[in-house]
Amino acid sequence: METLNVVKIGGHVIDDPARLARFTADFARMPGPKILVHGGGAVASGMLRRLGIEPRMTEGRRITDRATLEVAAMVYAGLINKDIVARLHGAGCRCVGLSGADGDTIRATRRPPQPVDYGFVGDVGPGSVNVQMIERLLGGGDTPVFCAITHDGQGTLLNTNADTVAATIAAAMAGLYDVHLTYCFEKPGVLTDTARDDSAVAELDAAAYGAMKAAGAVSAGMIAKLDNAFAALGGGVSRVVVKCADDLMQAVGTTIKL
Amino acid sequence: METLNVVKIGGHVIDDPARLARFTADFARMPGPKILVHGGGAVASGMLRRLGIEPRMTEGRRITDRATLEVAAMVYAGLINKDIVARLHGAGCRCVGLSGADGDTIRATRRPPQPVDYGFVGDVGPGSVNVQMIERLLGGGDTPVFCAITHDGQGTLLNTNADTVAATIAAAMAGLYDVHLTYCFEKPGVLTDTARDDSAVAELDAAAYGAMKAAGAVSAGMIAKLDNAFAALGGGVSRVVVKCADDLMQAVGTTIKL
Repeated sequence: METLNVVKIGGHVIDDPARLARFTADFARMPGPKILVHGGGAVASGMLRRLGIEPRMTEGRRITDRATLEVAAMVYAGLINKDIVARLHGAGCRCVGLSGADGDTIRATRRPPQPVDYGFVGDVGPGSVNVQMIERLLGGGDTPVFCAITHDGQGTLLNTNADTVAATIAAAMAGLYDVHLTYCFEKPGVLTDTARDDSAVAELDAAAYGAMKAAGAVSAGMIAKLDNAFAALGGGVSRVVVKCADDLMQAVGTTIKL
Repeated sequence: METLNVVKIGGHVIDDPARLARFTADFARMPGPKILVHGGGAVASGMLRRLGIEPRMTEGRRITDRATLEVAAMVYAGLINKDIVARLHGAGCRCVGLSGADGDTIRATRRPPQPVDYGFVGDVGPGSVNVQMIERLLGGGDTPVFCAITHDGQGTLLNTNADTVAATIAAAMAGLYDVHLTYCFEKPGVLTDTARDDSAVAELDAAAYGAMKAAGAVSAGMIAKLDNAFAALGGGVSRVVVKCADDLMQAVGTTIKL
């Protein structure tokens, strides 16, 4: 099967114009079919504060009331998504920016309010992804660029974790492609000591991950990312790597193994 | 040829949730291929003020510095576009929200800084529209929903007048379809007395428009809209109507004739 690269870009790369420019230029040059998924939580939090709304997080996940949802839609689907799309075209990569509402590409279920009411937050699963629509774009030579805004199909937008969106799309496309999923952020991989960038491990399997979690050596955000990474492997994705955005084209970072 | 409806929604409908809900429900029910183009200037101006940026207009057109461009991209391509797309899906209309950067659908040229420097404002013409991409979406059963953010193809987003975007798309599609262009806003049509909503004319031709302009009876915003309406007719669009958004499904409003 043909290889499809699904790349997630997030962390403190989105809010660093020079790094984002380097990353988008590299991504534009990646050969073959590809999909980009982006975050932007730091930019959203900054915009919330500028608008007098204090961001609220629980276990690394954002509490999304209506005002926060509107800012999330603005920042993710408008500001960041269209900036990345324009940059990629400038670098010669034909692409289409999408939220999950566009073309009904990702339909989510609003998370139940128990035990924590996260507000307008959507959960996604294997059936959430409109594989046919994504394949139609890829077949036409257009690279989909997803933000992590989804919808419930009934008229309401929902905020979804971007790592989860990337893993869910990757797994959904695994029936048609040999899918490689790459999580890019500002660190060189999964660190055994979060204070030391030279502590990235080359490989991480489920047993080693369990031991790291038990030792309290993994942050809440990294747990969310790695849980998604393992879920993607379980869902048929053939290769998952966590690496620095600056190293997109280099064979480095942490390879996740079941 | 098959009829393609291109509908522009703008004015004080976008910032009126009840009216917007009614309009999107009506638009969702329109039969046949269709394209929606939306404005949202009042919402953008409100967001600029919330962020401490005073909106600047010259002859009904916005001066767009970099900070204003970012807010325009957020509000038009994020907040408003995705809200409309989610609503339309909720009403049973499959659609894809697009800026002109998405799929390179509308490529613009940055307006020269003389005689007025409008900043990041893009001008469009007959060659700006990616007819093939739009036709691919329509052929797949997806209704394109455009905001009026365009790009220069070199990595920079540009702000473009939404009435102009609607007219330009309508004219570009006239080679493939019998195109009907409808401008919807909060007034019942072109008014001979802007203080009286019952002064809408049933028809307006170029001579009568010239006389109205000479008498100073047309606002700057309406002149921009009508200039676009006449340009669309000149570009091969078969029917142009200016009407109230509440009346989308009724045969009322002002029909523009060459």
